[in-house]
Amino acid sequence: MNKKDNILIIGAGLCGSLLALRLAQRGYKVEVFESRPDLRTTDISAGRSINLALSDRGFKALRLCGVEEKAREICIPMYGRLIHDSKGNTFTSNYSGREGEYINSISRGDLNGILLTEAEKHENVTIHFNKKCSSVDIEKIIGHFKDYKTKEEFSINADVIFGTDGAGSILRKSYYLERKFLFSYSQNYLSHGYKELEIPADALGNHQISKEHLHIWPRGEYMLIALPNMDGSFTVTLFLSYDEGEYNFNNLTSEEKITSFFETQFPDALALIPSIKDEFLNNPTGALGTVKCSPWHYQNKTILMGDAAHAIVPFYGQGMNASFEDITVFDEILSHFESSREVEDWEAVFKRYEKVRKEDTDAIADLAIDNFHEMKDHVANPIFKEKRKLEMTLEENFPSAYFSKYSMVTFNENIPYAEAMKKGRAQDKALLNMVAHHDLDAITDLKEVLKKVQEETNEILEEDKIAGM
Amino acid sequence: MNKKDNILIIGAGLCGSLLALRLAQRGYKVEVFESRPDLRTTDISAGRSINLALSDRGFKALRLCGVEEKAREICIPMYGRLIHDSKGNTFTSNYSGREGEYINSISRGDLNGILLTEAEKHENVTIHFNKKCSSVDIEKIIGHFKDYKTKEEFSINADVIFGTDGAGSILRKSYYLERKFLFSYSQNYLSHGYKELEIPADALGNHQISKEHLHIWPRGEYMLIALPNMDGSFTVTLFLSYDEGEYNFNNLTSEEKITSFFETQFPDALALIPSIKDEFLNNPTGALGTVKCSPWHYQNKTILMGDAAHAIVPFYGQGMNASFEDITVFDEILSHFESSREVEDWEAVFKRYEKVRKEDTDAIADLAIDNFHEMKDHVANPIFKEKRKLEMTLEENFPSAYFSKYSMVTFNENIPYAEAMKKGRAQDKALLNMVAHHDLDAITDLKEVLKKVQEETNEILEEDKIAGM
Repeated sequence: MNKKDNILIIGAGLCGSLLALRLAQRGYKVEVFESRPDLRTTDISAGRSINLALSDRGFKALRLCGVEEKAREICIPMYGRLIHDSKGNTFTSNYSGREGEYINSISRGDLNGILLTEAEKHENVTIHFNKKCSSVDIEKIIGHFKDYKTKEEFSINADVIFGTDGAGSILRKSYYLERKFLFSYSQNYLSHGYKELEIPADALGNHQISKEHLHIWPRGEYMLIALPNMDGSFTVTLFLSYDEGEYNFNNLTSEEKITSFFETQFPDALALIPSIKDEFLNNPTGALGTVKCSPWHYQNKTILMGDAAHAIVPFYGQGMNASFEDITVFDEILSHFESSREVEDWEAVFKRYEKVRKEDTDAIADLAIDNFHEMKDHVANPIFKEKRKLEMTLEENFPSAYFSKYSMVTFNENIPYAEAMKKGRAQDKALLNMVAHHDLDAITDLKEVLKKVQEETNEILEEDKIAGM
Repeated sequence: MNKKDNILIIGAGLCGSLLALRLAQRGYKVEVFESRPDLRTTDISAGRSINLALSDRGFKALRLCGVEEKAREICIPMYGRLIHDSKGNTFTSNYSGREGEYINSISRGDLNGILLTEAEKHENVTIHFNKKCSSVDIEKIIGHFKDYKTKEEFSINADVIFGTDGAGSILRKSYYLERKFLFSYSQNYLSHGYKELEIPADALGNHQISKEHLHIWPRGEYMLIALPNMDGSFTVTLFLSYDEGEYNFNNLTSEEKITSFFETQFPDALALIPSIKDEFLNNPTGALGTVKCSPWHYQNKTILMGDAAHAIVPFYGQGMNASFEDITVFDEILSHFESSREVEDWEAVFKRYEKVRKEDTDAIADLAIDNFHEMKDHVANPIFKEKRKLEMTLEENFPSAYFSKYSMVTFNENIPYAEAMKKGRAQDKALLNMVAHHDLDAITDLKEVLKKVQEETNEILEEDKIAGM
């Protein structure tokens, strides 16, 4: 780790641009290559994850880099889920029973733009657009690129390469194909894909449904969700199986079928999506994949971060937050090694980083898949609903003693994901079983309820521990 | 599915040769291409998985193909584990409390030879050796090969291709690289590798330690195991971390270090391995990987079977058994579709096969990793030992009512792996917790013990079900 090292970052998405900013703030010299055009000057939204959920782990990293306030200016708070049943009835389910705990709908492009601009304010940062990485020589630390505009091919030598090039990472592919080490790797797709649609603003530019909620139309095997945008519109996303069930992406190929699907399943949403047919037929169907791998680094030469190392499905609203948290964790380790005089090697930093971080990114990947089933199905289940209601009451009455799994994951940035998963799953199991068996019905003192929930949770954790030896 | 279809099988290992035999028996025309030389005429053992464990699932498939008896002739029964502690003390732990339930040590090469010979007896089977598959065109159904001897390259057109080309499958790699469909894929390596060593026969050609057991030297972070061979020798396998702990493959590089490792950790084994230094330094260090993927097939054109579809680590002794069981399951589905007059398409067979089979091969993969920790560590734990002792008593006294997880997996070929895993894990959890908490100490009636174990197991299954909604 030398401030004179030539650092090459592949990818100037959310993770790459925040990483560039932070490394520049620490005094490193950074060159960033991005395959797409500069999104501050070109409209490149193409019906794909236009808005995202930003919450406390993301803010912690943005705060570290001094850009929290700029991000807050473009946030739309969402305080809970607003659930639409098939008869058109709605009910709300808050994300927390505590005051001031909410998630935020934010435009991916606008936030990315802020981070690029902040990074470029540093003279030790250069960002190149329209330069597509085609492969990485991980032994010689060379990135091979092609300029999309001039079609010219060129190579960049570096002292260290950071791959923040997303779920389809070229650096990660080089690890797989070069076979220089045992590379554990998984890419797992859900049976479902997604398609983005739009609820436009009304004639006055206002939101047509509550902008204070994340809307869900759960239908068991599929669902529709909607997140508000600053311009009064909502980005709507349909999650649907590719080829199973009565309705699926493979058989919804004609305007009639599409209309009939929405008319029977989502009539209230259909009324708000005027361009349904065009959007459905023209917007791409995206895949929902989880990527895990290890090791993330190769010697002291290259490392994967963000989605390139751990792409997750979107159902916990944690993809961007997890990538930003990578920067928080990496920065802390880098800081530690910089101040210790013993080790000066990037490899020690990379090893320590993965050792600390990997179990947490594995955990949020698994939690995100759990939430897919929760959102499309469980949210409409009476036992689940009663459990969530009870959790809100506990959080409201014991704000410093009770935290739901959702709260631990989303609002407690100092609880690692893996711990939140372990404790949260045990707590959910305890609660769901007690609700299902009416164990709490006779207890009138809320303190007693809390005590019983805690005891059951601890017993579950203890039994799992013994079973795992 | 037409008996005139040209069927190409890539790989004539255990799975490929049994598949060729079975398809030939059903009247299909089969050509098999194998990269290695014919192991019946060439010695190709090279310090890698010389012997394997054969048990009831394997026998069921061999029976279907009429080769069970031939296999039994080269089996050495192993009735339990014989565990060697670090002081040189030994104790046994049986695999079952029932009579006649044991696993078998068998030579991979000898068994493969039997299957090749049986397959070649059918005139509709041709097996080509030294023909290495380099890639598969899955769209056009063409295998590209290179002859190891003549160096000639050639291609084979087929109506359908079966990839039984093992953990490093070329067909599977083509799925990954061609990106014609969403291919979920994982390759996961353990932190440990393995190395094979030998305990030779004594001067009279007899086994030097009990040949009726699978020997284990558990040491927590690593272990040695030994399986008997027909010639009086044992194949010994060391499982050790690549780079962690005081001793690991990366630092055991000198004769002194190797000797010192064995002298302090495995003195009784060391005394039986005369060529330890040569073998340790010259035999390859193998990796331990798990492969899962989906889909296994591409349209009606190609399909993966055996290790190519689901490679697992060796700790449950089920790798070969699972691959053989693939043939049993596939044959049943093929039989069903052949006799129904509605569907005549390989794709329907392939789809149904994966739908039935995938959750079971996923389960045995996970169980095999559990057993890694059980063998190197838990077998020496007092609570685990007491639990196994209790299970032996229950199996002995209630042979038709109690089945340990091990028994369900190994001796109950009609219980699918996934069911054995689910029930077996719940039962283990119940037992370990009851033993740890001395819940059973006061119960004198064994029937009451059985009842309590069953009740606790069912409660765990019920609680898990509610938690999973």
